[in-house]
Amino acid sequence: MNSFIENLALLRAKMKENNINFYIIPSTDPHLGEYTPEHWHLISWLTGFTGSAATVVISEAFAGLWTDSRYLIQAQNQLKNSGFVLMNAVNSEKKDYLRWITDNINNGDKLGLDGNLFSIETTRLIVKFLEKKDILFDFNCDLISGNWAARPPMPNSVAFDHAIRFCGKERAVKIAEVRHQMQNMGADFHLLTATDDIMWLLNIRGNDVKYSPLLLSFALVGEDQILLFTDESKFPLKLASEFDKLDVVILPYEETGGILSTLFSHSSILINPANTSAGLYNSLPEGMKIIEDLTIPARLKAVKNKTEIGNIRKTMVKDGVALTKFFYWLEQNAASGSLSEVMLGKKLDELRSLNENYLSPSFSTIVAFNEHGALPHYSATAESDIRIGNEGILLIDSGGQYLDGTTDITRTIALGFPTRQQKRDFTLVLKGTLGLACTKFPAGTKGYQIDILARKALWENGLNYGHGTGHGVGFCLNVHEGPQNIGQGHGGDLKISIESGMIISDEPAVYREGEYGIRIENLILCTEDKESEFGKFLRFETVSLCYIDKSLIDISLLDKKEIDWLNSYHADVYEKLNPYLSEKEKLWLEEKTSKI
Amino acid sequence: MNSFIENLALLRAKMKENNINFYIIPSTDPHLGEYTPEHWHLISWLTGFTGSAATVVISEAFAGLWTDSRYLIQAQNQLKNSGFVLMNAVNSEKKDYLRWITDNINNGDKLGLDGNLFSIETTRLIVKFLEKKDILFDFNCDLISGNWAARPPMPNSVAFDHAIRFCGKERAVKIAEVRHQMQNMGADFHLLTATDDIMWLLNIRGNDVKYSPLLLSFALVGEDQILLFTDESKFPLKLASEFDKLDVVILPYEETGGILSTLFSHSSILINPANTSAGLYNSLPEGMKIIEDLTIPARLKAVKNKTEIGNIRKTMVKDGVALTKFFYWLEQNAASGSLSEVMLGKKLDELRSLNENYLSPSFSTIVAFNEHGALPHYSATAESDIRIGNEGILLIDSGGQYLDGTTDITRTIALGFPTRQQKRDFTLVLKGTLGLACTKFPAGTKGYQIDILARKALWENGLNYGHGTGHGVGFCLNVHEGPQNIGQGHGGDLKISIESGMIISDEPAVYREGEYGIRIENLILCTEDKESEFGKFLRFETVSLCYIDKSLIDISLLDKKEIDWLNSYHADVYEKLNPYLSEKEKLWLEEKTSKI
Repeated sequence: MNSFIENLALLRAKMKENNINFYIIPSTDPHLGEYTPEHWHLISWLTGFTGSAATVVISEAFAGLWTDSRYLIQAQNQLKNSGFVLMNAVNSEKKDYLRWITDNINNGDKLGLDGNLFSIETTRLIVKFLEKKDILFDFNCDLISGNWAARPPMPNSVAFDHAIRFCGKERAVKIAEVRHQMQNMGADFHLLTATDDIMWLLNIRGNDVKYSPLLLSFALVGEDQILLFTDESKFPLKLASEFDKLDVVILPYEETGGILSTLFSHSSILINPANTSAGLYNSLPEGMKIIEDLTIPARLKAVKNKTEIGNIRKTMVKDGVALTKFFYWLEQNAASGSLSEVMLGKKLDELRSLNENYLSPSFSTIVAFNEHGALPHYSATAESDIRIGNEGILLIDSGGQYLDGTTDITRTIALGFPTRQQKRDFTLVLKGTLGLACTKFPAGTKGYQIDILARKALWENGLNYGHGTGHGVGFCLNVHEGPQNIGQGHGGDLKISIESGMIISDEPAVYREGEYGIRIENLILCTEDKESEFGKFLRFETVSLCYIDKSLIDISLLDKKEIDWLNSYHADVYEKLNPYLSEKEKLWLEEKTSKI
Repeated sequence: MNSFIENLALLRAKMKENNINFYIIPSTDPHLGEYTPEHWHLISWLTGFTGSAATVVISEAFAGLWTDSRYLIQAQNQLKNSGFVLMNAVNSEKKDYLRWITDNINNGDKLGLDGNLFSIETTRLIVKFLEKKDILFDFNCDLISGNWAARPPMPNSVAFDHAIRFCGKERAVKIAEVRHQMQNMGADFHLLTATDDIMWLLNIRGNDVKYSPLLLSFALVGEDQILLFTDESKFPLKLASEFDKLDVVILPYEETGGILSTLFSHSSILINPANTSAGLYNSLPEGMKIIEDLTIPARLKAVKNKTEIGNIRKTMVKDGVALTKFFYWLEQNAASGSLSEVMLGKKLDELRSLNENYLSPSFSTIVAFNEHGALPHYSATAESDIRIGNEGILLIDSGGQYLDGTTDITRTIALGFPTRQQKRDFTLVLKGTLGLACTKFPAGTKGYQIDILARKALWENGLNYGHGTGHGVGFCLNVHEGPQNIGQGHGGDLKISIESGMIISDEPAVYREGEYGIRIENLILCTEDKESEFGKFLRFETVSLCYIDKSLIDISLLDKKEIDWLNSYHADVYEKLNPYLSEKEKLWLEEKTSKI
């Protein structure tokens, strides 16, 4: 009996003890963000599956795991002999496990979960799915903590000040802005559970989580005080005394729920139900008026200030230099036949890490050769790694966390001679990237209203891609940051307008299963255009700086405006990057960015 | 004291008698559709205002009327000495009167309205607006019927069979389809309150309402029977015996609520809360399971069948012939300087009425010269009428109801020599009309995802229009027919995909206040394009047939594809229409449709 089988048996015994018939385990942590510390990798401990997104359901007769398409192969391998079945996740809402439970649970059964790991939105959905059955719920049921002997400790990185020359706005000013909006919304308190909201508000960063400079914490903003729930030992004296001046009081992380339960029951609190855990929500006193909406920091930090924008422009230069050096190196060494996807990823991360103010990659670097490129979220592992041959399509999606900005860029290049179909696909994707980047639109426009600009050329040729077109990007924060996005509007964020100062990715693609994938991604900054009698208009400025592989372009498919845009973009790339390149690299980039 | 002041005093006395502090009167009828018979023109009787959309609120101290921008001037004139104040309606949701009531009503007050004239959706909204106050509601409060002495009778047009050669599908087949879907949705009953749903289902038409061939009626579809609530005398014997065979039972219109209240309380019923009145809703027995959704006929009739599509194509020819003859006549007579907007409207209606199977205009014909064109819903009246001069921009939006289809088309033409700005505006609008008409898109695409194609060229030049781009069109039914539309997605109909067989208008525009308006509207039919490994794709086919004024086109703004489209469209227009024209008209159209 391996440890997974043992753990499963142990868990089932605990379930029996607590009269739980069905138990759900998520891959989230109490902050419900994208990246989680190992302390919360319950699924990996229980099943051996190490992918970042999954849900496990256990009953007496069943133990199954749901994950999304990018992890199916990995899960198949890792779940062997774990006692867990891999379930098919076909639905985009990722709530397939709820459908399964609905079909398999019996009247009178009890369903348990640890409410600290589920958003109140998700637990509501669970209740709604099961409303037609007579089910008991225990949403305060942690059956893991007591049984995980070698559990990794909570992360304990140290907080550091995010200097004003980077972030551009004093914490006192941000706090005042938040309080002003709280007043307008009639909220006495504002609970922040997303750690990036807290980092932004208090101008701090940490290192508790991979890929994002975050410090695990909750915050409760009141009229005069801010309670910051975290580990006091994480705060250097200087920062602690700064906080003292602003009446930011540090309290133990574990006491969040307890303190919330002591709030005045006739007061009001603003929370975001999408990232507030059911556990914290249920600790609020009865009778309290709960206002559910996006958090105020989420709306404020989406619009970058002038200092941040200035920094991002500079950061794009150094990030582009690293990419240029990488692609030059790649072209010099590709012929050797000795390179692999994993090696390329390491090399690129290494070049980026030489940059000033660099912290870490902003996500796991994607290097995907040929058929691997057709898997939109492929990430090379030791098992999947393949050699980069002389012929083929290479897709590289990568980004960096810097104190002065966060980057995210995808380039697809051809090794050897691309086929006609490859050139056609690439050019149609490029037309999409440009179509979105070059649009002008009235203030108040939502992302779903302009998404088609990235798809139009593809649609006209019977092509499409199955993901959104663009996500917001944080400033030295999460590389995927809401609330704005550009997509087909299937989700719920339909009310968010694109505003001047927002940064969004622009990443149309084509994936040909078993053959290759093509994606071209730039970050675009929304800026103001003219105002006319018809209102205020906005536009985008492309801020990412890296050449686009001309060998993959079929010029006959581009119109004059597109050709002009590309030539002008390439001139800009060369002008801004060449001062930081060696003579050989310069010559090489000059050729890569010469006019078409 | 005039009759309006008297009526108002009478109504206030009635309110006092019934302890009503605030009373709301709408412009709707019990079917909550767009056009209503005079029997329900309560507001016109009470205030003298004859516009088609308004809401009146009365309290002891206040009597006010809300209407939308198109009627403001008319209301100002008509409300003089009526005792009613004209309120500003600025909000697009048209619920400003609710905001006003919320601000002015006191705790303990009682709000009354006739629930037969408000959708359940609207009464829910009223309750929600006022939830923070302690208000009593009387939603069963008709204070008008007993006091309107000379009230016009209920309309009494006679039903007629909509022949199978027009509608293409037997009523028995439609009924079976509806019952099949009811079963899938778990609905024992299906209540139809929108008269066009009933017309479609039973292949009948009537003449109770202006502009739409409708017969006032409710229908309750059950597993075996259909109860049709209407006036039996409206049914010719032959039709009645046809209905008999299908177990369609005719019952008195007034008994609808009474019969609904006798339904088995453990059964289920499908209703659309947007057009089911609170009165009917409240008559359903307690405990009944109510499924709220679009009606099944609304979804089914939106997708036109092959016979309908064949008929529409033919109807577009005769409709286009009438338009061509009209514009030819106009050009011959414009120089006289004696023409006016009202005269042109009459002439066009007259030419259309000569067509086979013609019933009526499909809405009030819009003839708007110069600055009148800048009012999107302008309709010339004796008071507003102006002469058509030799120079200027003329916008004509019109349509016909035919047994074999419903048309709706807008053309804007120049009299004399258009300015550069007029040509630029026109050409940018044309680029929008074509941009939408020429797109291809994957099955499942929603209207809000492609709306920008009609706006893109305008946006790029700092222009825009404040209304939706396209509405569905009925088949010998309402000219505005849901559930599909093409717009910016502000409304609620976000879940409706555009399907093959749907007919939608394509009508971008530019309105320059005080100067002119330009709108180019065609009906477009959604058809199937190719299927690829990326899924099934759809496209549009433009079905309206009328030349587009080349004198307003700035060719330098069009690309080759757009020029090709226009030339090919014009060739098609000429080919299809010329057989029905006189020699002079032919020559004239040949020139109007010659290549650019």
